[in-house]
Formats: sequence, C-alpha cells, structure tokens
Amino acid sequence: MAELLTDTAVLATLRAPDAVRWMKEAAVAAHRGDLHAPARVAADIGAGALVVTAGHLDGSWYGYRAYDTLGLVAGEQVVVVHDAEAGRVHALAIGAELGPRRTGALGGAAADVLANPGASRLALIGAGTQAWTQLWAIAAVRELAEVRVFARDQGHRAGFARRAEEHFRVPCTAVTSARDAVDGADMVVCATPSASPVVALDWLAPGAYVATLGPKQRDRHEIGTDLLDAADVVVTDSRAQALGYDPPSTVVGTRVEHHLQELGAVLDGAAAGRTSQDQLCLFYSVGLAGTEPYLLAKLTGLD
Amino acid sequence: MAELLTDTAVLATLRAPDAVRWMKEAAVAAHRGDLHAPARVAADIGAGALVVTAGHLDGSWYGYRAYDTLGLVAGEQVVVVHDAEAGRVHALAIGAELGPRRTGALGGAAADVLANPGASRLALIGAGTQAWTQLWAIAAVRELAEVRVFARDQGHRAGFARRAEEHFRVPCTAVTSARDAVDGADMVVCATPSASPVVALDWLAPGAYVATLGPKQRDRHEIGTDLLDAADVVVTDSRAQALGYDPPSTVVGTRVEHHLQELGAVLDGAAAGRTSQDQLCLFYSVGLAGTEPYLLAKLTGLD
Repeated sequence: MAELLTDTAVLATLRAPDAVRWMKEAAVAAHRGDLHAPARVAADIGAGALVVTAGHLDGSWYGYRAYDTLGLVAGEQVVVVHDAEAGRVHALAIGAELGPRRTGALGGAAADVLANPGASRLALIGAGTQAWTQLWAIAAVRELAEVRVFARDQGHRAGFARRAEEHFRVPCTAVTSARDAVDGADMVVCATPSASPVVALDWLAPGAYVATLGPKQRDRHEIGTDLLDAADVVVTDSRAQALGYDPPSTVVGTRVEHHLQELGAVLDGAAAGRTSQDQLCLFYSVGLAGTEPYLLAKLTGLD
Repeated sequence: MAELLTDTAVLATLRAPDAVRWMKEAAVAAHRGDLHAPARVAADIGAGALVVTAGHLDGSWYGYRAYDTLGLVAGEQVVVVHDAEAGRVHALAIGAELGPRRTGALGGAAADVLANPGASRLALIGAGTQAWTQLWAIAAVRELAEVRVFARDQGHRAGFARRAEEHFRVPCTAVTSARDAVDGADMVVCATPSASPVVALDWLAPGAYVATLGPKQRDRHEIGTDLLDAADVVVTDSRAQALGYDPPSTVVGTRVEHHLQELGAVLDGAAAGRTSQDQLCLFYSVGLAGTEPYLLAKLTGLD
C-alpha cells in the first residue's frame, strides 16, 4: 500500500541535514546522467494549466510533481514516486511543503559548496516561504551568528524574524532596508517576487555568496545583470533549465552563459566552483526537475 | 484529507449503470465545452515516458491520470481529482482499474445509443481487460441473451466465458473463430491488440453495432477500412483525439473524417446517430481525455 504524506508529515519527518545531503546526491546524479529530469510539460485545462515535472533515477524510482496555475486559494501539489522495479506507487505527498523544502535544500547544498567555510552572517531579502526554507537549509550547513531579514511589509519581516529566532535559535533581526540586511553579510539570499533588482553590487562584501530564487528573466529579475556579470563564479542547479526559460533568463546570450557551472558538476569535482576566498559566488536557482520525487523517495526509504 | 482508492475499492464501489451514466454526462460536457480535455502530454524519462491526460470540469473539479510507458510488471496508474473551488486534492486512485472501467463505460454509453433497442446477442473479439469492461458496461444497457467470445488463446477465451457466466449471469460461450462469434450477433465488440482486421464486413448482420477498442492506425488496425467505409454511422468519443493520432488513424483523410460524429453530440441531440434499424453503426473508441478524473470525482461524491 502506498504511503500518503501530508504537509504535517513532511514537516515532522524531513530534517534539513538529510534534505541537503539528498539534494547534493540528486544534483550529482543529474550531472552524471543517472537522474533523468526532462523539461516540465503542461496541459491547457482552460483558465490555467496543469504542469508536471518528472524525474527518473535509473534502477531506483520514477515520479513527478503535478501542480496547476489556476491560482486557487489552496491549490495543492501532488508528488508521486514509483519504484522502478515493478512500477508500484511507493509514496505520495499532497500539499505545499515538499516543493519549497527541496528548493531550500538545493540552496543549502549550493551555500555549502559556494559560501566561504566561515560564513556566518546571512541576509535574507524576502520573508516568504522560499526565504524560510533557505534559512532552514543554510542553518544546517553553516553556523549562523546573525541573520538579518528585509521585506517591504513590516509585519511580514518582523513575524519572520520572531519565528526564525524561535524555530532555528539564531539571532534574527528584521531591518528596514535591503541595504541594511546586506551590509557586512557573507551570505545574501534573494527570495522575492521582485521584477527589479533588490540588491546593488556595491553593497556586497568581498567573497560574498549570493543566491537568487526569484524572477530571473530578461525583463524582470531580482538580481541585476551587473551583479551577474561581476560574479566570479555563477552556479545553477540546472543549465538546461536556466537556458530554457521562456522568455529567456538573464544568462542567455551573455558571457555568463558560457561560464555557467552546474551544481552537480561542482559537487562531483568536474567544475571548479569557488577557488578563492574573495570571489563573488552566485547561485542561480532554477529548481532542478525530478528533485521533489527524489526527496520523497529518500524520505520514505525508497533507494 | 484526500480519499485514496485502491483497485479493490474501485471494484467494490463502482457500479456499471452509474459509470455509464457518468460517461454520458462527460461526453455531453465535452461536447458543450464544459469539460476541458486537452491532448495528452508526455515527458521523456529515459527508457520510456511519463504520460498525463488532464481534465477540468468548469466550476466543479480538475484532475488527471498519470501513467508511464516503461513497461514494468505492475506499472500503476494514478488518477487525481481536485475540487475546482479551493484546489484541494479531493481523491486519488492508484492501480489499474479506473482506466479500463471508464473505457468500458464509454463503450456502454455508445452501445446504448447506437445498438438497436432490442439487441441481445453480443460478440466479443478479444478476452482481455478491455473486453471484460465492455461486457460489464453493455450488460448494464442491454438485456443480454447470449455472449460469444473469441480470442486466439483457448485458455483465455474459456476462462473469460466461465468468469463472465459467474459474474454477469449471462450465457457466455467461448468459440473457436471470430466468425463464429460474430455470426448472428447484433453487437460486435473488438478489443484486441491485432494489427490486422479481425472481423470481415460480410460476416455482419444488418443493423449491427460494432465497436473498435484496439489499434486504429493506418498501418495497423483491428477493423478494416472497408468496414469503416461501409458503416452508415461512425461515432467517436473524441473527434480531436481520433483525428490527432500519430501515426494517423484510419479515419484521417477519408470520407468518414467528415461524417465522424461525436458521442456527446449524439447524446445531446446535436448529431443524428442511428436513424434506422438496418444501419451499420460503428463506435470508434479513443478514450476521451478527462474521463478518469470525471469518474473518480463522481465516485467520491464531488459534484
């Protein structure tokens, strides 16, 4: 009988160190070609689309995440994983947790390999679910001395800071500008819906790690192309996805396109990643396909 | 909490008369444009594909069926239905029953409108799951006096006849040729994997109802193009799907293409269907998309 996980069950059982380790494995498997993670497919169902991202880990499992773009108040996602031997459904997850958790864990994996070893001051631009799960995962890979969070809504950022202190037992301060958050930080995570840059290049400390979770298309992006161009190292969880955006992403047709490294390649030793302490390293997060079922497979003991 | 149905639960709760009624409603809803049933989408997952057929009934529900083409021994299908108000997952079905049951029920709906009212002698060519669920549904719309089943494998057809007598309490005989099955029948259902015609036109009684469930592509089809051409009325559950086959179906580019009626239109009074007792009426079954979630929605009380 298939195991059915709710959000409550995911929250109760998924630990950040495990999630980060599994997402590192997934990135390496994708790099080596063992994890098939094709482009998403979508079916027009009138007033929106049903979207499916699939994955298949050779010899182990296959599965998918299905979600819709109807914009309903509680639009739940479904993640399904089948064992690859017989094709039986091994587990399903219904809800909204698994998606942001895997994005968080991919961000934790990226921070672990791209932030300096002693990085301890984290700036969060954005105070939503994505910012929350980035903090969740980064707290598992770095000892955080200080977190500063900025979001335009005063209530959101204050609530986030309070919950973060309670939940992660790290000092977390809500600040009144993005610049105040970034000032002196050695890790900067942008997780906003902003269509224009939220962080200026000259605010950044030498050797900073910067991650962009939000919009990254040519005409709307939360990280400026100047910052992208100035970065010494740019890493993404999927080159194919980063280059396949429609409309095109900010890397397409730039110098960065040719130097864009893949997280799995860095983890596997096939790409350099950070090579010196002063480099500005950028993680260009696109949400490697196939990683939600990967997480569900691991979480439910399917190897 | 979402309801999770196994095959056992589907078998225990789905009654043929209900299933046929619901598939008639679905066909009409598709005809009227209330049921969005886009073409299937597929993602290449290496060694096969993940295939998704979606559906959305305006104001009621949306959902999909997901299956794979990896050819695994127990490759289970998943059907999911969300309520269209909030987007919550209302129910899921895991297994292999719902697909053939809805195909059966669509066949029952077609037989009900296309077979003569007094039709009572059914020929089944094929003794697999599809033949079984056609019988299940047709027995709900016509009083069957006699069923004759032919399949090449002697054990299969004998086993089918025995189980059919037990289960449906109809006289069912396994015969040694397709011609013996068809001889004198007023309903002929072809549900084989055959690449070449299994029934000859001149075997058919006047006024017969013929259904084709199996291959219907130009280069491999279980019903001859002569029979297709001779039919007075040809009805399909989806014109778009029947004309969208790749490689093309046997109706594409023929006279029939322009006269191909849709089951929902016939049920809705917008197409004629059978107009006289002596007409040869053919049901060209393609499996209207969106009908598995339709069935699941109805079965679990989502209206």
